[in-house]
Amino acid sequence: MESKKNLKKLSCFKILAKDKKTQARAGIIQTKSGKIETPFFMPVATKTAVKYISSLDLEEMNCKAVISNTFILHLRPGENFIQEMGGIKEFMNFQGINVTDSGGFQMYSPSLYVKSDEKGVHFKDPFENKIIFITPEKDMQIQLDLDSDIAMCLDTMPLIEHSKAQVKLAIERTTQWAKRCKQEHERLQKSKPKNKKQLLWGIIQGGIHEDLRKISATELTKINFDGYSIGGLALGETIEQEMKMVEVCKKIIPENKPVYLMGAGNPIELLQAISRGVDMFDSRFPTQNARHATILTSQGKLRLDRKIYEKDSGPLDKNCTCKVCKNFSRAYIRYQLKQQEAVGMHLATYHNLFYLQNLMKQAREAIKQGRFKELLNKVKKEYKKADKNLKVNN
Amino acid sequence: MESKKNLKKLSCFKILAKDKKTQARAGIIQTKSGKIETPFFMPVATKTAVKYISSLDLEEMNCKAVISNTFILHLRPGENFIQEMGGIKEFMNFQGINVTDSGGFQMYSPSLYVKSDEKGVHFKDPFENKIIFITPEKDMQIQLDLDSDIAMCLDTMPLIEHSKAQVKLAIERTTQWAKRCKQEHERLQKSKPKNKKQLLWGIIQGGIHEDLRKISATELTKINFDGYSIGGLALGETIEQEMKMVEVCKKIIPENKPVYLMGAGNPIELLQAISRGVDMFDSRFPTQNARHATILTSQGKLRLDRKIYEKDSGPLDKNCTCKVCKNFSRAYIRYQLKQQEAVGMHLATYHNLFYLQNLMKQAREAIKQGRFKELLNKVKKEYKKADKNLKVNN
Repeated sequence: MESKKNLKKLSCFKILAKDKKTQARAGIIQTKSGKIETPFFMPVATKTAVKYISSLDLEEMNCKAVISNTFILHLRPGENFIQEMGGIKEFMNFQGINVTDSGGFQMYSPSLYVKSDEKGVHFKDPFENKIIFITPEKDMQIQLDLDSDIAMCLDTMPLIEHSKAQVKLAIERTTQWAKRCKQEHERLQKSKPKNKKQLLWGIIQGGIHEDLRKISATELTKINFDGYSIGGLALGETIEQEMKMVEVCKKIIPENKPVYLMGAGNPIELLQAISRGVDMFDSRFPTQNARHATILTSQGKLRLDRKIYEKDSGPLDKNCTCKVCKNFSRAYIRYQLKQQEAVGMHLATYHNLFYLQNLMKQAREAIKQGRFKELLNKVKKEYKKADKNLKVNN
Repeated sequence: MESKKNLKKLSCFKILAKDKKTQARAGIIQTKSGKIETPFFMPVATKTAVKYISSLDLEEMNCKAVISNTFILHLRPGENFIQEMGGIKEFMNFQGINVTDSGGFQMYSPSLYVKSDEKGVHFKDPFENKIIFITPEKDMQIQLDLDSDIAMCLDTMPLIEHSKAQVKLAIERTTQWAKRCKQEHERLQKSKPKNKKQLLWGIIQGGIHEDLRKISATELTKINFDGYSIGGLALGETIEQEMKMVEVCKKIIPENKPVYLMGAGNPIELLQAISRGVDMFDSRFPTQNARHATILTSQGKLRLDRKIYEKDSGPLDKNCTCKVCKNFSRAYIRYQLKQQEAVGMHLATYHNLFYLQNLMKQAREAIKQGRFKELLNKVKKEYKKADKNLKVNN
């Protein structure tokens, strides 16, 4: 074990401000592609593209990080292809931070997942009709070839219907794999100068079981990763269960390590997690919801497919300064979405992502100015009000 | 009949320059939404949106006109809806010129067209499973409600497989309807000040029959429209047949009237038509082709799905200054198109439209500078060379 002082020195994360009333903190993560302020939200760019949003759009909305999928990119176009094209950042021409998920989450996909044993995971290749075997070591190699800035360990994600005994096996395997990931990741990067090194996050599992989360967090922090992900949540458990797990993990993860709650994208969920000390997020929530006409606004969630918005010439969100809100009406976007026109998808997605980027910016500023709790309460109130109205009017 | 001097004075069209070696001319059309320089190309925005391209994109690429479809908009969301939303221009927030096609072209669509008689056309409403009857008068009312800048007469478009006798009947009906359109259009706009009036184009039909085109052009010019469309072409006839028909019509259409070749979008086709005195165009060609990986470039047509472009890190067109060519590689766009990702569709479409806008700009400048013929020959040569290479390599 390294000394505490040494650990601090080695950390990629610097805390700039701590909220007094909550556990929220604002900081900076230093990666080989530059710095990023926390807390932040990453749109999902599975195949090096966010749905309906180009890298130029991301830049324009001040989005500083996206997350792509190691396993999906391994299938097509392959990590060697992306390596030849200069790495993921160069390939998609994204100026921010590229994060890659390991593919452990694809164990959730019945069309891709076959089985896993202690050596690794067997996946189906849907294009070639063959089985692909991914070990923790292989996964590290792929992520280094993709050249993302932050990589994730290959984890074993228990399914929501799994028994506690099964979840226990999953966290044990996750720990074993995490050790192998760390070792291989260090070996492969040994010769790289420090400022060119990819960072590696460990992923804490344990379902909704406090004791298992504790064990998983404890075991993983012993390995000393650059950051820690809390995985296997935002999958159908209650928000109380989810936040409880965050609290359990946060008690164990060292203060100077960034914490990433995987799969969370609901505005309230983000703020509640931030208030518990989470620093980063990703989710399909804003993009997928946009395509299904659910719009995130400063007045809460808006179901744009409702008849009352048919002739609404106002913007999606009257308090939003994004180019969509400045230029297009609810009526226009609603009509284009109803017609399944790409422009409708694009405009709604752009706004939802802008909204979340802006919410994270507000959170960072509120933390620095000691009024994060007020922000959380304000947003909570607006969303509650909107949800109540939706129930009454549906 | 009005005097020649009077006609000239009344024209919405001003010729700025005439090419000496060809019939090409550069000019300006004055509409109630402002001026537009000719020759120009209009992307197709059937339902008030170009596929994968927002009004902001159009503005950015300096696209000054789009064409929407009267009949399709009548079905959904209805002209009264768009009128309530401030008209088509306001609804889609497009700063340029809005043109509407009458819906005559939908006679080509077996899923929509039922039959037509001398009174009007019977269309199927695919949403409500009922028959909609559109008369020339009704069509004028719809287009005025939509509030486009340039409207089209309701025409009877003969199908390509029709006998000459059938085409003859079609042009006779087109003339009858054109008279009714003109009369109704004038009646409906009587009280409007001149600078607020919608313009109306007559549509010349006649298939690929010189004598019928002559009759149609002669009869329509007698009615004295603001401009003339040449319809029923770019539908499978040879380019020689198409250009012959353009020549026949141009001989009859008065010099001071703008001429619109409907449905043409192939770069060579545009330049050849411009060299015969055509001023405006519309087509799905650049947008549809982009989605199918056919890219328009200064080196001719490029089939991006070919294997040789798989790892091509160069831009779609090395001589293009559009944001897509400045920021993304052939390899990236090709991969996203192969993955059916919206971003691939968007980037390819944006470039193709930018290319055509730029080609039209080049044409306008070349006409003014007396070197249009050189431009035509240069572009022709590049496209021929590329097509030859494609044949050799396919």
